[in-house]
Amino acid sequence: MPPNGHDSVVSLTRHWYVACKSSELKRRPLARRVLGIPLVLYRDASDEVRALLDRCPHRNVPLSLGGVSRAGHLECIYHGWQFDGIGRCRVIPGHKGETDTRSRRCSHVATREQEGLVWVYGALDEPSEHEPYRLGLDQLTNHTIAVRQVEAEASLDATIENALDVPHTTFLHRGLFRGAERQPVKVRVKRSAHSVEAEYIGEKRPSGLVARLLSPAGGIVEHWDRFILPSIAQVEYRLGNDSHFVVTALCTPIDDFRTRLTAVAAFRTPLPGAVLRPLLTWVGLRIFAQDARVLKAQTATIREFGGEQFAHTDQDILGPHIAWLLKHSEQGDPNGSNFERESTLWG
Amino acid sequence: MPPNGHDSVVSLTRHWYVACKSSELKRRPLARRVLGIPLVLYRDASDEVRALLDRCPHRNVPLSLGGVSRAGHLECIYHGWQFDGIGRCRVIPGHKGETDTRSRRCSHVATREQEGLVWVYGALDEPSEHEPYRLGLDQLTNHTIAVRQVEAEASLDATIENALDVPHTTFLHRGLFRGAERQPVKVRVKRSAHSVEAEYIGEKRPSGLVARLLSPAGGIVEHWDRFILPSIAQVEYRLGNDSHFVVTALCTPIDDFRTRLTAVAAFRTPLPGAVLRPLLTWVGLRIFAQDARVLKAQTATIREFGGEQFAHTDQDILGPHIAWLLKHSEQGDPNGSNFERESTLWG
Amino acid sequence: MPPNGHDSVVSLTRHWYVACKSSELKRRPLARRVLGIPLVLYRDASDEVRALLDRCPHRNVPLSLGGVSRAGHLECIYHGWQFDGIGRCRVIPGHKGETDTRSRRCSHVATREQEGLVWVYGALDEPSEHEPYRLGLDQLTNHTIAVRQVEAEASLDATIENALDVPHTTFLHRGLFRGAERQPVKVRVKRSAHSVEAEYIGEKRPSGLVARLLSPAGGIVEHWDRFILPSIAQVEYRLGNDSHFVVTALCTPIDDFRTRLTAVAAFRTPLPGAVLRPLLTWVGLRIFAQDARVLKAQTATIREFGGEQFAHTDQDILGPHIAWLLKHSEQGDPNGSNFERESTLWG
Repeated sequence: MPPNGHDSVVSLTRHWYVACKSSELKRRPLARRVLGIPLVLYRDASDEVRALLDRCPHRNVPLSLGGVSRAGHLECIYHGWQFDGIGRCRVIPGHKGETDTRSRRCSHVATREQEGLVWVYGALDEPSEHEPYRLGLDQLTNHTIAVRQVEAEASLDATIENALDVPHTTFLHRGLFRGAERQPVKVRVKRSAHSVEAEYIGEKRPSGLVARLLSPAGGIVEHWDRFILPSIAQVEYRLGNDSHFVVTALCTPIDDFRTRLTAVAAFRTPLPGAVLRPLLTWVGLRIFAQDARVLKAQTATIREFGGEQFAHTDQDILGPHIAWLLKHSEQGDPNGSNFERESTLWG
Repeated sequence: MPPNGHDSVVSLTRHWYVACKSSELKRRPLARRVLGIPLVLYRDASDEVRALLDRCPHRNVPLSLGGVSRAGHLECIYHGWQFDGIGRCRVIPGHKGETDTRSRRCSHVATREQEGLVWVYGALDEPSEHEPYRLGLDQLTNHTIAVRQVEAEASLDATIENALDVPHTTFLHRGLFRGAERQPVKVRVKRSAHSVEAEYIGEKRPSGLVARLLSPAGGIVEHWDRFILPSIAQVEYRLGNDSHFVVTALCTPIDDFRTRLTAVAAFRTPLPGAVLRPLLTWVGLRIFAQDARVLKAQTATIREFGGEQFAHTDQDILGPHIAWLLKHSEQGDPNGSNFERESTLWG
Repeated sequence: MPPNGHDSVVSLTRHWYVACKSSELKRRPLARRVLGIPLVLYRDASDEVRALLDRCPHRNVPLSLGGVSRAGHLECIYHGWQFDGIGRCRVIPGHKGETDTRSRRCSHVATREQEGLVWVYGALDEPSEHEPYRLGLDQLTNHTIAVRQVEAEASLDATIENALDVPHTTFLHRGLFRGAERQPVKVRVKRSAHSVEAEYIGEKRPSGLVARLLSPAGGIVEHWDRFILPSIAQVEYRLGNDSHFVVTALCTPIDDFRTRLTAVAAFRTPLPGAVLRPLLTWVGLRIFAQDARVLKAQTATIREFGGEQFAHTDQDILGPHIAWLLKHSEQGDPNGSNFERESTLWG
């Protein structure tokens, strides 16, 4: 095992991660793995989302096999033990004494439900130090919204770098996203303690299918790629006042080498959103399928060789900053030094 | 690896385990794994059952791929080496000198065939210290007998506790075995050096399907649950003089997390056995399928967390005693102290 | 892990191994694993075969997913980095400075293409100390040639011993290769520093199907079995001046417990080769299927018990010499002592 005690590059526990969409969590408990921890999510009597460690303290059966009692407690399928939303044992059928003893308590994680998503905190039995990221969808009143969940067989850092990397689109997604053209673009990178942004200046609209759909007339686009700790990748395009496209990938490390992406796309174009949405979704899933194949092969190679062994160039605009932020954040370094630089991407 | 050198809670080697039914072992050798040891069973020239380590000393090919020679020796498929019932090398084709040297000898285990079952001793090349358990089927002349083999993806101790645990039947098997009723029952637990028995006193006939079949008229039942070292779980019901039901699960640890159950049911009721047998078998297999699902999920969780982490209550009537007997037996403790107590089960 | 640092008996790196047939390597890169090392083979602009470590130095994606550029460089699918035949980085799209730095270089292995086969050297970035084995097919002008590739789930030493072992053919291949007859044959074993040969003297033509096909009239055959370091097994039969049969199995250790055999059969008989070839191929593949089943079971048993534990007799004509040569070669022992002895095989 590597020095940090886990196989992936980083493991950031005291952060929020998307566990599922609100619509996925109905009356039945739902099993979800986050940071390698098996969790069970359910809704209590007030419909509030709760998340416990998915292991009954009695005989270690997954609580996700069970159900929710009338009182809104999570009930184990095996012997009917019941737990409240913070893991206290409330009912042991047949048992007449105190139920909530230390050894019968189940660990829990903090939860939030907002903007149609369920978030969990990555540390057991700890109060959260801050609130989950807000997409601000309520302010995008004229935008069309599309949400999709996909899974990559890759570590968090490989997945996020892939999501924000421009040069690979010319090769791996040739035709879909970008054409074979190569145009120099000025790029300004700004890194703060918790995020890094690349702003592309004077970029012509790419020639691929997605770009044509979003902006049939062409022209100069405004384009930002952003990484926000611990696991958010965001790509934003703007073309004059008519077209705006922002896709935010909320990444959840399932375990060291599997990452779930909850991709929220919001766009506004001259074309009607209801027409564009299925088309963009189809293209987006095709692009992801190409990425997923490469990420899976990359991950297999990294694991076979016992770890990443990467070489860098000045065309890796955000990758090294993402790795830097992830590692400094894991080490709890308080002085994430700011950084700003302009360079040229020959995309 | 845990301190005792194996992953499951216990590994009891100097004991007898059922390897197969007599009817499963015909002229062809049969591969069976017991306590993690690959064995090959076959019948020699006198039809006697023999069991060797399933590895030819010559080139380590499994002997179970081979056959039985006319002389009743086990013959390797690869080069035709032949072994007798205690693993002595008797024939090496083409070899002119002595065949039975130390390095050419195959390990064996003691075997017994009785009551339609083949038993093997759990220690290589050791004489047995005692004889296998007898079901005494020859004395149950008016009973109908049914034998079934099933496999659980679970350790021996988890499988046996499940087989003898009353409270879970109300939850996991609701309707099949017990209804939702909850009635206090007095239970007397008696533990000796080699077994533990729970006697339920004043229990009303349960309301589930099985109980209705066995005793349509209802009433008070006599009910005993027994664990007998190393791996026998027995449930017995008696209702007056007319109805008697006893099912004995002879458990064989295949390896640390797989257990084979040979369930022998014997029953006598006012209804004809030929009618009841298929019905009871069907219900029994349905109940086991529900148990198997939970045991498999329990085992996966236990393995993921690196071991059992159980909490107990006074409703766990036999579980702690089963664990106690298994552990003391593994440690070879001669003074298994007796134990007796009465309590109340709110099943 | 065993003392030599790998799980199989030996790992001979500074040797040549067949990677594929020439006809398998066209315009697309081909992934092949040799000695546990993932390699990518491709043809450069001059159609010369090249082999690199199958991992892009940039982001560790397998280069075998990519293609070959117009300039004959191997191009990564992810970001289009290009490498020449010895792994130097020649193109990084968008990058303006030097491309060929140390951290961007990909390891390579030496390659040869001869007699319709592609060979690779088993050591990264090392010049070869000698040339690959030559079959000399160009001198067998009157022979019919058949080439087949098969894979065994077995270590190199187990696979080679199996290929050159006579006694097992009476048992495992009864009827196909040899009948049940047992005839004493004189055998002369000669071992040099790099090979061992068994010459069978006065052997009657075997009674099985293959032998009847090759020599319908029967008689006395000349028969040699040869092992040539590191991984070549050769069986040669000659019957007077009319019939000659030699099959050479060029073995490639894929990893510790998988071996690829490239079997090259050359034969000349009174029967027309075009008729005999499909028949012999069919029989050969049937024989191999029987061997493959036993080798796989043998390997599983060896792995379960943590290593080979073999017993030997004087009927194991070549096996111990093969093991001796492999082990001495791995240790780089310069004084492989010669050996010669006559004995009798009771095949």
